Amino acid sequence: MTDDKKSGTPKDTHYARLRRSYRDQKAGGPPAFRPKKPLPPGEAAPDGLLRLYGLHTVRAAIDNPRRTIRKMLVTRNALERLEIADTSALPFPVEIVEPRDIDKITGTDAVHQGALIEAKPLKPKALSALGETSLVLVLDQVTDPHNVGAIIRSAVAFGAGALITTSRHSAHESGVLAKSASGALEHIDLIEVRNLAEALAELHEAGFQTIGLDSEGPEDLEKSLDGTRIALVLGAEGKGLRQKTRETVSVLARLDMPGAIRSLNVSNAAAVSLYAARKHLGIANRE
Amino acid sequence: MTDDKKSGTPKDTHYARLRRSYRDQKAGGPPAFRPKKPLPPGEAAPDGLLRLYGLHTVRAAIDNPRRTIRKMLVTRNALERLEIADTSALPFPVEIVEPRDIDKITGTDAVHQGALIEAKPLKPKALSALGETSLVLVLDQVTDPHNVGAIIRSAVAFGAGALITTSRHSAHESGVLAKSASGALEHIDLIEVRNLAEALAELHEAGFQTIGLDSEGPEDLEKSLDGTRIALVLGAEGKGLRQKTRETVSVLARLDMPGAIRSLNVSNAAAVSLYAARKHLGIANRE
Repeated sequence: MTDDKKSGTPKDTHYARLRRSYRDQKAGGPPAFRPKKPLPPGEAAPDGLLRLYGLHTVRAAIDNPRRTIRKMLVTRNALERLEIADTSALPFPVEIVEPRDIDKITGTDAVHQGALIEAKPLKPKALSALGETSLVLVLDQVTDPHNVGAIIRSAVAFGAGALITTSRHSAHESGVLAKSASGALEHIDLIEVRNLAEALAELHEAGFQTIGLDSEGPEDLEKSLDGTRIALVLGAEGKGLRQKTRETVSVLARLDMPGAIRSLNVSNAAAVSLYAARKHLGIANRE
Repeated sequence: MTDDKKSGTPKDTHYARLRRSYRDQKAGGPPAFRPKKPLPPGEAAPDGLLRLYGLHTVRAAIDNPRRTIRKMLVTRNALERLEIADTSALPFPVEIVEPRDIDKITGTDAVHQGALIEAKPLKPKALSALGETSLVLVLDQVTDPHNVGAIIRSAVAFGAGALITTSRHSAHESGVLAKSASGALEHIDLIEVRNLAEALAELHEAGFQTIGLDSEGPEDLEKSLDGTRIALVLGAEGKGLRQKTRETVSVLARLDMPGAIRSLNVSNAAAVSLYAARKHLGIANRE
């Protein structure tokens, strides 16, 4: 990498160096090397709005009729990759910008891919809005937005109908979360509850088996899967499930891991559990 | 959260406010509010050394006889959590520090948990060093260190014997990668190859079925698993497997996903594939 910063890299041919030296002489000396300074994020979004960025995320938000978008900043290149031919057909103002204009807003750490929107957050639903879905994911105080975003992506991929979180001590909708979800945020119902134990009891009444994932759980997850509606319950890394949650779930189950490390990253644990539950439900619903 | 910054929070009782006001008066007025400024990472590690941090990561590195540690910076609290009673028994110098001393080195974004070591990287092995393992993971130019770290953690959990990467265009051992691996980095053989297609051919000769994961793959992963040695091959997000890799693997397979999003985060795809492969091998090796 550092080679790029020198004026003569090992890849240079003799003639390439000569040509560059001639061109630089004509232009009044070689250009000064200016390393790109990392930019921190700029001012916060206007009150009550979120900034969502990244091609998948912005595309999915535009396609979501439940999402209110206030404006879009987009590069010509990103506009093409989003396959938007006519910006005037969009129900919000669109500003064509250079990548660095978005850098100034998100900071250079955010992989915005030249597309950013300001939008209203999706209103979280109540548990009573849970539909006919046979698979839901419940998070007990998982706060890392990267993990929650990746979990939402897997939940949508494996056909979970809702993500249930506590209204406090949870990651909320944000640019980072939405980017990690890679568009999936627009495809799932987010349900917020005040009291997780009460929510689990309601799920039991609705015919769900609630399975708490725990690396020390007494049952193997696959063997514990039972019934036609499954709610998988995962806790934060390190902390795991809270005591009250552990006491309330139908069963505490572990993923069988033969290796030297016996716990997974929470989003990986969610993906594997969703995969196993989806498989069980496929068989259960064929019977 | 912002409530903490005010002098009177909604949780305050009348008497708590009175007590604080009295105490502040005695001390010459209320303390000025000083928000913590985020610190960027400090100078790079000394030449040829890595900085590893976090309790699991540091604990596993100390326990790894193949890991050469040059020094440790640790808080009293972290020392206790690492269950180190006698620092003089360790074969490297230990400096007892305050958390902010480590902040200055790693930056405040790194979750160092009060423990940091400077250590030599583990020397990547050659493919010829691959032992009797029945399960390996192959990464085709996956560069994100968070993802590669989480993948290493899952690989160790599901008993994969090695992680094979290309020497170029791959994430290499680093503090971020090691932290995401949560100690698992010390439990797996890292193998680097120059030419991935040649490495896959060598794996075929050693009796491995090589399965390339591809969201558009013609076969369902579970149905494609065959034989007693499995190598799972994953590409970077967005780019996927390179053409040459696609042409060389035994089979291209997909994970069956019924939802609106048909691709997972690469570390989640790795975890699910490892889980399915481990299950297949458990059955194949019992037969």
